Amino acid sequence: MLVVMKQSASPAEIEAVVKRIEGMGYGATPIPGGQRTAVGLIGNDGRVDTASLQGMPGVLECIPVTHPYKQVSREWKEADTLITLPNGTVIGGRGVALMAGPCSVESEEQILTAAGQLRAAGATILRGGAFKPRTSPYSFQGLGEEGLRLLAKARELTGMAIVTEALDADGVELVAEYADIIQIGARNMQNYPLLRRAGQARKPVLLKRGMSATIEEFLLAAEYILAEGNPEVILCERGVRGFDTQTRNILDLTAIPVVKGLSHLPIIADPSHGTGLRSKVVPMARAAVAAGADGLMVEVHPNPPGALSDGAQSLFPEQFEELVEQIRVIADAIDRAVIPALPEAARV
Amino acid sequence: MLVVMKQSASPAEIEAVVKRIEGMGYGATPIPGGQRTAVGLIGNDGRVDTASLQGMPGVLECIPVTHPYKQVSREWKEADTLITLPNGTVIGGRGVALMAGPCSVESEEQILTAAGQLRAAGATILRGGAFKPRTSPYSFQGLGEEGLRLLAKARELTGMAIVTEALDADGVELVAEYADIIQIGARNMQNYPLLRRAGQARKPVLLKRGMSATIEEFLLAAEYILAEGNPEVILCERGVRGFDTQTRNILDLTAIPVVKGLSHLPIIADPSHGTGLRSKVVPMARAAVAAGADGLMVEVHPNPPGALSDGAQSLFPEQFEELVEQIRVIADAIDRAVIPALPEAARV
Amino acid sequence: MLVVMKQSASPAEIEAVVKRIEGMGYGATPIPGGQRTAVGLIGNDGRVDTASLQGMPGVLECIPVTHPYKQVSREWKEADTLITLPNGTVIGGRGVALMAGPCSVESEEQILTAAGQLRAAGATILRGGAFKPRTSPYSFQGLGEEGLRLLAKARELTGMAIVTEALDADGVELVAEYADIIQIGARNMQNYPLLRRAGQARKPVLLKRGMSATIEEFLLAAEYILAEGNPEVILCERGVRGFDTQTRNILDLTAIPVVKGLSHLPIIADPSHGTGLRSKVVPMARAAVAAGADGLMVEVHPNPPGALSDGAQSLFPEQFEELVEQIRVIADAIDRAVIPALPEAARV
Amino acid sequence: MLVVMKQSASPAEIEAVVKRIEGMGYGATPIPGGQRTAVGLIGNDGRVDTASLQGMPGVLECIPVTHPYKQVSREWKEADTLITLPNGTVIGGRGVALMAGPCSVESEEQILTAAGQLRAAGATILRGGAFKPRTSPYSFQGLGEEGLRLLAKARELTGMAIVTEALDADGVELVAEYADIIQIGARNMQNYPLLRRAGQARKPVLLKRGMSATIEEFLLAAEYILAEGNPEVILCERGVRGFDTQTRNILDLTAIPVVKGLSHLPIIADPSHGTGLRSKVVPMARAAVAAGADGLMVEVHPNPPGALSDGAQSLFPEQFEELVEQIRVIADAIDRAVIPALPEAARV
Repeated sequence: MLVVMKQSASPAEIEAVVKRIEGMGYGATPIPGGQRTAVGLIGNDGRVDTASLQGMPGVLECIPVTHPYKQVSREWKEADTLITLPNGTVIGGRGVALMAGPCSVESEEQILTAAGQLRAAGATILRGGAFKPRTSPYSFQGLGEEGLRLLAKARELTGMAIVTEALDADGVELVAEYADIIQIGARNMQNYPLLRRAGQARKPVLLKRGMSATIEEFLLAAEYILAEGNPEVILCERGVRGFDTQTRNILDLTAIPVVKGLSHLPIIADPSHGTGLRSKVVPMARAAVAAGADGLMVEVHPNPPGALSDGAQSLFPEQFEELVEQIRVIADAIDRAVIPALPEAARV
Repeated sequence: MLVVMKQSASPAEIEAVVKRIEGMGYGATPIPGGQRTAVGLIGNDGRVDTASLQGMPGVLECIPVTHPYKQVSREWKEADTLITLPNGTVIGGRGVALMAGPCSVESEEQILTAAGQLRAAGATILRGGAFKPRTSPYSFQGLGEEGLRLLAKARELTGMAIVTEALDADGVELVAEYADIIQIGARNMQNYPLLRRAGQARKPVLLKRGMSATIEEFLLAAEYILAEGNPEVILCERGVRGFDTQTRNILDLTAIPVVKGLSHLPIIADPSHGTGLRSKVVPMARAAVAAGADGLMVEVHPNPPGALSDGAQSLFPEQFEELVEQIRVIADAIDRAVIPALPEAARV
Repeated sequence: MLVVMKQSASPAEIEAVVKRIEGMGYGATPIPGGQRTAVGLIGNDGRVDTASLQGMPGVLECIPVTHPYKQVSREWKEADTLITLPNGTVIGGRGVALMAGPCSVESEEQILTAAGQLRAAGATILRGGAFKPRTSPYSFQGLGEEGLRLLAKARELTGMAIVTEALDADGVELVAEYADIIQIGARNMQNYPLLRRAGQARKPVLLKRGMSATIEEFLLAAEYILAEGNPEVILCERGVRGFDTQTRNILDLTAIPVVKGLSHLPIIADPSHGTGLRSKVVPMARAAVAAGADGLMVEVHPNPPGALSDGAQSLFPEQFEELVEQIRVIADAIDRAVIPALPEAARV
Repeated sequence: MLVVMKQSASPAEIEAVVKRIEGMGYGATPIPGGQRTAVGLIGNDGRVDTASLQGMPGVLECIPVTHPYKQVSREWKEADTLITLPNGTVIGGRGVALMAGPCSVESEEQILTAAGQLRAAGATILRGGAFKPRTSPYSFQGLGEEGLRLLAKARELTGMAIVTEALDADGVELVAEYADIIQIGARNMQNYPLLRRAGQARKPVLLKRGMSATIEEFLLAAEYILAEGNPEVILCERGVRGFDTQTRNILDLTAIPVVKGLSHLPIIADPSHGTGLRSKVVPMARAAVAAGADGLMVEVHPNPPGALSDGAQSLFPEQFEELVEQIRVIADAIDRAVIPALPEAARV
């Protein structure tokens, strides 16, 4: 970290900063410049609280040089993290993983129909919400554990892996019993008790980026999970808050190459929540793969106009089929490949 | 709600929208315009899921006319909500409430010293974190229940009311045992299990605005608490995410008059987290009162440079004293008054 | 437009709104709802100033239903606008146009080298700044008219078309003398005298989206140019201001399908300014094509580390070559095609 | 500036960075740290183009330590800049200046009525647009030079100083002939030819902050004016783009104390454009003064519902009177004073 002093800082003030840093157990090196002095803090282990320096007399600002995350960083672990699901799908390698399904599990018929269509179209992971975080307390909140049972049944019949969201620490355990991947939603990206519990689970975690989270905050949220001992985290870009109401969010695809530079964790994109409108989902799904995403999570519903939630952003099954065809070509253009569809008779 | 049709929408498409709305149990009135037709949805009770209409053929967009919140709105309850604490402080009326204290409870000496100084300066509510949500898993996370006990001791000695944060549903119960106000932090504004549990508590709830929450989302989060039966919610503006790194956040003071127009709930401001730097806290605290805030929550530490967290934004006790003097005059200018200091011998 | 009345609005207040609308020369239809009345304004020609209604007693808010732009909209003109340059490049059709070149024209050698390399790699349009808008008055501001002469020489030798920026109304005339496309930069998107002058020019205009412009404001800026009689506008998404300093901007690729739905004008993407870092330019260029962009504008420099401006975001020539190969495949995947390279002996 | 190297950077890469910096004419000091080396650039005069370093092998990022502005900074000039208008109003000292008037000059009667009312209420500076930058080409664009003549007449009759906007370089000269302060609007904050021309004018310049300008960009825009020789710049915070459509903008009052720390230039606030709704203007005007603004610019119209532009955000004259009374008390609370009203017989 660099503690930048004011031009008017006195030698005594600079000395006090050096002493404070040394008192915190780090090294301190004053760096005189043309206009001002800065003091370098040496040995920063990511735990330095800048606040106590920032308030000192003569200090202009503290500039972090080291990033505060560790285990998620590519400097900690150079090789890409690969996450292998029970049905053989590997997330994070050369393959592009396809997760698809309805926003909410609504009924046995709905989820089994969806699973059959999506497996046929090439998806190997089935998504579907059993516990739904809704902005309004008066909106449909999901089927709860019954939804989990239906997802498990769909897995049994199709061989697809299952990903679904947990809303709180208790929910993590319940979801972990049924699902192959525990999803943590954007609204909970900084719900630390939830992150810790997910870090204690023995299942991979899909962590969505918060609505206005910086990439550093996103990686630090993942760090909570790794710090508890669970190295299998899949990051998911799902759009950040923008200023334009034409689109629900801004899908920040640049985050994909940025995260890939900073971290070894896989990162996928969710163009459905990232755009909020069906006609934008297909182009942005293609764009995400072209940008280097390790997978997609797409909302597809057997009958979108009849959906209980998020119908406007759900694809029709035939749109998803067409999308998969386009994505195969795009993946190929960048020397990757969509993960092959499951065989028809697949069983876990 | 208004369903705006495309210029090219056919009569059959318009008719289908009308039928769908009626099938949802609402009335539908087509409104032909110069360029296009819109269909008004009559009888919206705040539960309409626009998505299922938005995806229909010929539909351009759905424009909400009714707001989705109910009990928090001023149309539901005209009169300001007044919240009376055990020590007599009333939040939401003509008075301006002062909440102050350190970011974290660090030790008995620290919190008792702070409480004594702040009571003397005029604050009637003591803040202090026992459970700290920290962006990094490696930062100081608070004293836990021991912190709650120290806060209760400070209340016993000074008569100040206590406000402190709960991080999860279990925490709500623990905090409710000790504190007079349960705080829900910005990162948890859309943590719905937590909001529900706070709605079941028998203590007032201080709800902080999420980092990038719209005012509508903020009010909907409060609606979760009211919907569970707890009408005593204090809203708190604490800064929203901006694009400029010069300030930690943008303190959105305009939210104060906006919320006061839309809702009967009291709203206070937190200029400490809203700005992140001590030298900005005092001017912005004054500005919040001038904008009509029902109170302030300010970080003050007996010795800011030695604080374990947020030292850079904590005021020195003498700065707080001076601030209170200025605020008294400003409150007076707009026909309000800072709530009188507690008598020296105060006991709950 | 819909004028939404408060629940408490009196019949007299509603009547006054109706009268005001009629006095403005439009029709007015009150629409009674379950909770409140709204008044529909019929015949809105895009000139209604909502402000004079919004301030009236009993009015809650005015919701625009018609969009305020006209000639740029797809409802005004259904078919895509095609813009044909003197060298045969057509922008806006099935082809994907490649514009490339250095940030600034620095010398004859630099620009001629760049042009030769880029023509060989497949670009048909050469970019290069002669007049540079720089955030700091102390940064390099461009070669001025000399730069324009060098660009023209490069065109003569390679057959590439030329695009370069004009900073003010006088500059438009000068640029129009030399260039094939007049560029208007992001900082000038709402510089109305400049837009009007560009609208009077007889050359196509490349209009960059402002740093925080909504899509509606972007289209309204284009409307200024069309309203002056110039229908040849190429829109360019170049990133909007975000809250994360990891990336210079957020490249908002969703704007591409959104604009294509709303307008008949072509839209391209500039991943160089949109990301600000070389390693992000290639993936985001691919993503833009996958999202449906009608072309790319990419900064490429014969020797990026020696560039006088924007070196960090300029590609090396061989990176551009590789990018073009990948883009050919991606364009093909969505039934489009990169515009063929110019023949070696090309002359205008 | 600090050039932070990757952990994996080789000694040769570090050496190359040192050489490059020295080749640019600056000093270079490698600073070895616990995890990585950084190279300090010594003697930065604000002209270093980070881009050419940022792209070098082994470089992680470049962190600016010196700010790129000079003459506007408080380190360049410690004492507050005071700007004295012909009618005796001093902006930037202990006094709080009141600028008020209609959005647009509409007619002689309108502007003279407004001027009389506002002078009586205590304003000493009259605002009014003659040239209006409007988002839509179909909105009212102002009276042009006739508007300037009417403003001058109002000055003659009331003694108020005049501030009005120039839209382009030619306009600066015309406005400078008539007005006492040349206004540059938010959309033109980075219109560099306009800034330069304003820098050559012999009149004070009121520079509004751009819609999404950082404070550093705002100060750099002012630097353009000072660099041309005009030291009399008044900065104006007028709201930045936010994500919530409830308010037109977010009035970023924290910018006031931040700017006052960084620069010697006066800064005022415009709560009318900053909020967009009359009922928010009064509280935010009070808040701006409480935050330390050197003045206010407020839209007041003799008859807001009849205004040709911005009626919804214009105060009624009696609201302005009441506001001035409140502000007098608030200014007093922070040891400042509203600038006294002009005597009735005032003549320039």
